[in-house]
Amino acid sequence: MSAAPIPADIHTLADYERHAAARIAPATWAHIAQGNTPANRAAFASRGLLPRPLADLRQGSTATTLFGQRHAAPILLAPVAYHRLVHEAGEIASAQGAAALDTTMVVSTLSSVPLEDIARATRDAARELGHAAPPPGWFQLYTQPDPAQSLALVRRAEEAGFAVLVVTVDAAVKRADFALPPGVGAANLAGFAPQQHRTGTLNGQVVFGSPLAQTAPTWETLAWLRRETALPMVVKGLLHPADVIRARECGADGVIVSNHAGRVLDGVVPALAMLPAIRAALGPDFPLLFDSGVRSGADALKAMALGAQAVLVGAPQLHALAVGGMAGVAHMLHILRTEFELAMAQCGCTQTSAIGPDLVVPTGF
Amino acid sequence: MSAAPIPADIHTLADYERHAAARIAPATWAHIAQGNTPANRAAFASRGLLPRPLADLRQGSTATTLFGQRHAAPILLAPVAYHRLVHEAGEIASAQGAAALDTTMVVSTLSSVPLEDIARATRDAARELGHAAPPPGWFQLYTQPDPAQSLALVRRAEEAGFAVLVVTVDAAVKRADFALPPGVGAANLAGFAPQQHRTGTLNGQVVFGSPLAQTAPTWETLAWLRRETALPMVVKGLLHPADVIRARECGADGVIVSNHAGRVLDGVVPALAMLPAIRAALGPDFPLLFDSGVRSGADALKAMALGAQAVLVGAPQLHALAVGGMAGVAHMLHILRTEFELAMAQCGCTQTSAIGPDLVVPTGF
Amino acid sequence: MSAAPIPADIHTLADYERHAAARIAPATWAHIAQGNTPANRAAFASRGLLPRPLADLRQGSTATTLFGQRHAAPILLAPVAYHRLVHEAGEIASAQGAAALDTTMVVSTLSSVPLEDIARATRDAARELGHAAPPPGWFQLYTQPDPAQSLALVRRAEEAGFAVLVVTVDAAVKRADFALPPGVGAANLAGFAPQQHRTGTLNGQVVFGSPLAQTAPTWETLAWLRRETALPMVVKGLLHPADVIRARECGADGVIVSNHAGRVLDGVVPALAMLPAIRAALGPDFPLLFDSGVRSGADALKAMALGAQAVLVGAPQLHALAVGGMAGVAHMLHILRTEFELAMAQCGCTQTSAIGPDLVVPTGF
Amino acid sequence: MSAAPIPADIHTLADYERHAAARIAPATWAHIAQGNTPANRAAFASRGLLPRPLADLRQGSTATTLFGQRHAAPILLAPVAYHRLVHEAGEIASAQGAAALDTTMVVSTLSSVPLEDIARATRDAARELGHAAPPPGWFQLYTQPDPAQSLALVRRAEEAGFAVLVVTVDAAVKRADFALPPGVGAANLAGFAPQQHRTGTLNGQVVFGSPLAQTAPTWETLAWLRRETALPMVVKGLLHPADVIRARECGADGVIVSNHAGRVLDGVVPALAMLPAIRAALGPDFPLLFDSGVRSGADALKAMALGAQAVLVGAPQLHALAVGGMAGVAHMLHILRTEFELAMAQCGCTQTSAIGPDLVVPTGF
Repeated sequence: MSAAPIPADIHTLADYERHAAARIAPATWAHIAQGNTPANRAAFASRGLLPRPLADLRQGSTATTLFGQRHAAPILLAPVAYHRLVHEAGEIASAQGAAALDTTMVVSTLSSVPLEDIARATRDAARELGHAAPPPGWFQLYTQPDPAQSLALVRRAEEAGFAVLVVTVDAAVKRADFALPPGVGAANLAGFAPQQHRTGTLNGQVVFGSPLAQTAPTWETLAWLRRETALPMVVKGLLHPADVIRARECGADGVIVSNHAGRVLDGVVPALAMLPAIRAALGPDFPLLFDSGVRSGADALKAMALGAQAVLVGAPQLHALAVGGMAGVAHMLHILRTEFELAMAQCGCTQTSAIGPDLVVPTGF
Repeated sequence: MSAAPIPADIHTLADYERHAAARIAPATWAHIAQGNTPANRAAFASRGLLPRPLADLRQGSTATTLFGQRHAAPILLAPVAYHRLVHEAGEIASAQGAAALDTTMVVSTLSSVPLEDIARATRDAARELGHAAPPPGWFQLYTQPDPAQSLALVRRAEEAGFAVLVVTVDAAVKRADFALPPGVGAANLAGFAPQQHRTGTLNGQVVFGSPLAQTAPTWETLAWLRRETALPMVVKGLLHPADVIRARECGADGVIVSNHAGRVLDGVVPALAMLPAIRAALGPDFPLLFDSGVRSGADALKAMALGAQAVLVGAPQLHALAVGGMAGVAHMLHILRTEFELAMAQCGCTQTSAIGPDLVVPTGF
Repeated sequence: MSAAPIPADIHTLADYERHAAARIAPATWAHIAQGNTPANRAAFASRGLLPRPLADLRQGSTATTLFGQRHAAPILLAPVAYHRLVHEAGEIASAQGAAALDTTMVVSTLSSVPLEDIARATRDAARELGHAAPPPGWFQLYTQPDPAQSLALVRRAEEAGFAVLVVTVDAAVKRADFALPPGVGAANLAGFAPQQHRTGTLNGQVVFGSPLAQTAPTWETLAWLRRETALPMVVKGLLHPADVIRARECGADGVIVSNHAGRVLDGVVPALAMLPAIRAALGPDFPLLFDSGVRSGADALKAMALGAQAVLVGAPQLHALAVGGMAGVAHMLHILRTEFELAMAQCGCTQTSAIGPDLVVPTGF
Repeated sequence: MSAAPIPADIHTLADYERHAAARIAPATWAHIAQGNTPANRAAFASRGLLPRPLADLRQGSTATTLFGQRHAAPILLAPVAYHRLVHEAGEIASAQGAAALDTTMVVSTLSSVPLEDIARATRDAARELGHAAPPPGWFQLYTQPDPAQSLALVRRAEEAGFAVLVVTVDAAVKRADFALPPGVGAANLAGFAPQQHRTGTLNGQVVFGSPLAQTAPTWETLAWLRRETALPMVVKGLLHPADVIRARECGADGVIVSNHAGRVLDGVVPALAMLPAIRAALGPDFPLLFDSGVRSGADALKAMALGAQAVLVGAPQLHALAVGGMAGVAHMLHILRTEFELAMAQCGCTQTSAIGPDLVVPTGF
């Protein structure tokens, strides 16, 4: 695959977004841009980093251990559906870009390339680049109407070598009003009966009393999945402190605090606003990741100061993929990691474990 | 009546507003757009919904009982004057759209079609659609200078089968500087002596010492109406906790918290800001509805979390009517109801009675 | 003087401002528009009025007594310099417009027409209109470098029949970078030696050590003026609670809380923000007026709810004068008074003395 | 050097910025405009000045003593790199403009003219202007990878007659993505080995484990510098109260609270927000200056009210230099000083030592 040249004026993730907006078809762009990003961004802007110059930086590292595996930096690629919407090679290119940076990609159930192919492309790219032991990918599960289908996806993920199972729980009930263009589809669900969306029905209940209500995942689904797989299980999409506690009781090995970038529930609270209370509820050690609105290394550091052990970025993957393909994704990750390391260094942190709430203060005073 | 085709890019009430702005004459649009909608919207934006995934949604329903009648959803059409300003069929089309969705319409004293015709159109539409027992309409009363005229309106509403009397108390004293176009008028007031507006008088008192002050409704008016009708009486336009208590003491069966969309009093407080204190004053059970600024199902859920048992939407009726006639109103209501049900489901609420203050948090933190 | 026709689309003071911007020369407009109006406006927007419908409005009145004189409404014309900047007839037209509405005009030391002519025009207009006992004008004093000059102005004001002496204390020290056009000047100061402004001097002190510091008014100046005149003395331009107390101790009969519309001190606190603390310091009865940012009757009511007994409007005079001459000023005052009366009525107040802090609430919640 | 004529419509620093934007090459402008100025500006806007009219201003002065030297006003030129980016004469013109106003210039390590030439130009200009004892310049040190290089810079500064050594500690770790145009460079570092920036390296650590981490200044560096020079040592770039205390313990004679205008750390807290806590930590007397976002004399007064004894302005130097060369810098300083003196006078302060926290209040109420 020939790499697209990356425009010389791209220095930040915002630059990628600007360039991508000019390259992506309007309907697809509108679909990608959905969500309450302004509210999420405002939450980040409400906290400022407090630099700590003159620290000794010689033993520093951004390395982070999650579920027993070392990550070069606490920044992962969030599960994002249908990469082929913006680039012909889809998740293959993204996975290769992630592999180039030793970054963990969380592969979506709704990937537009089969999960096995993504896993293979990741391994191949790492081998070609001579990377010793790159972190294996994680697989994100949307539970399916038929439990057997959910289980089939889990088994395929296990066999393909994914290291962690991320169960997304906040998007089972939503409107689907975006029509996928020809040639783009849910590659992992080929052969499954299509899930019923009834939002087009006039004057009927949409969720309640519909098949959706029968098949949406519940706490019991979580407990069942826990029994069915030995993979570390991470629950994504919880915002209430009581819910993360309950997820832990159901056997979750970690949680991803996320408001799905505001794409699922109009008027949802910014995810960042709930982070401190959730960390307080969980205590200092339970694995807690954050997703929703991260657009810079400084954002990543703020989220970690407020309680996360790592962050995931979503939409910027598609922006970078649209603009620069595999190289774009790698470059975008490099920008993010560079910004993060600089921010850590400027805040006097030499280990991610040292990142704490004293690094941020309200910007208002 | 032939239905106007609804533009394919309408997915939200904001889309209807955007399309309507291009179709309505500027003076009429300015009249409709009056009010402190930005302040009302800011109040909604200051609270975020807190999703609760993984709840069991199988027994869910949006059904709500108000004054002994079942409503498919806690979303009503607020009283809005002069529908014929934007569509030739006026309230007839709106009523048919509401009937198609089993939605209660609150017919305004200032309807541009006689209230009896609206009631009949509602029943006819429900029968044609095969709806079993649609909720009957409510009638909104602006008290008239002559009590006999007020009473005549109440009697007509009773005879036409309206189920609830809504007494609007916050607009008796206001400026009237919009000239109705030819062919649009207050159909229910035909034959009444025109109410005197003296705002054109230079250097005289406008309210105080004018006939207006003699005839504006008072607490005594409310008590009098209570004695005169057996219909449930709901007072619309109160914002002070002490006033809703007094309305209840005067025999009101319910209240609608509203700032009249800010159309009557410049600089009025956002209605949503007063909702929690009013619910606290009334206790948990007294019927309390909310109107002013609702533009989505998420807004409806927020208002209910802060104390309302149902909400009403105003201006969006005219937007939808202008764009799509009867079908537009029905579609607008369907959007709203779908959004509301999805929001309820995502917040783990399966009954409207379970909606409470823990569903919302401040978006700032 | 022939009256300019008032554009039909003017319904608010903002409409006057918009029309005026198109009629006034850019440099003059920039001079008039100076100040921190946005900050003053934001202060007003931060408080919402709380309506109280259903009150008995029959005995209502906006009448207000200030220094023993009855005012039809608690809204005065603030002292504004050089009316001839925007209309050939200058203060004569404004005074006639004010007289038509029985409104008190505070004539500026820097009026572009002699104070005696303004007083005479006011009386003539009132007589022609058949007004019984219109409130006499007030005179605003900028103390002059030579005390004899200040005293001469006071004596002229007394002889011309002005009823109150307003001493402005917050503008003695300021930059003067606006060049008056030919034919416009300080009519009352003709024959006085020009005041030295040294802001053009490079590298010298501007105030400190300059003649300005010798001649700027001090607390002693206030005490001296108190001894020299029997007129009620009102001090304008204080914002600190301790300063209003001290002004009262110096013999002031009232104060006008004002930040000079932010025209004198960049970054000054919004005047409204200081009002509650000042009223608290003064107790409930001491005469306290408010000036800075009032643009509607609702604003006037908010300022009164927060502690003022009356308000003054400044820049809108020039807007209305530029657009409609005498008739414009009268119409602008009528808009303001109508809005104020409607707001009072909607808030259930029938007497200005009943206006209190419970009428406003923070718009944020 | 012939002076560029200064546009007649420049009255404020914002006017200079506007004119400069039209004269500076886009890439250079983008480089200069970097940083979180909006956040710094919002912090200033959140506090309002509280005027205190009627004070006796006769003994007033803006004079301020810093490190034993008298300054005409507490406003200095912050260290700014590469003045030749916007004007051919570079720091020579700026220094002459500063000398004309008896203003202390803090010369940057990254000046585009050798520090000795700047010192000489300052002295020559002062002599030509007949200034008695203008405050000598200060020198700002970026420590170099090789301590001998740092020491060489200190020795040169001492020999050139600089009076204070400012050690900037917050920019050792940053991205450098601006390419200097031909003919502009770090004149003081000519002959030094270029510092290694590794931000271009894909997939490597940028700071941690790089030569940067070995050579970035630490608290030990500060202590070492303290031992090596007898000049007063001021540490610039601290924002945490604990860090300023530690700097004092390391022998610092003063600190400059600064967030480097937000140019170094994305998402950094506004410097002004940390000022009160830092002053509280240091007690009332320790020399504390402020830099970041000052754009007017009112801003300077606010920063001093919140704890600073003097302020520095950065980017406005380049704006004024680009627009008016030496005369522009002098004029810009004159504007600032005039505004500051007027603000002091209006707030009733006749000595800078009397400026305290009671001069500012939150603009929200």
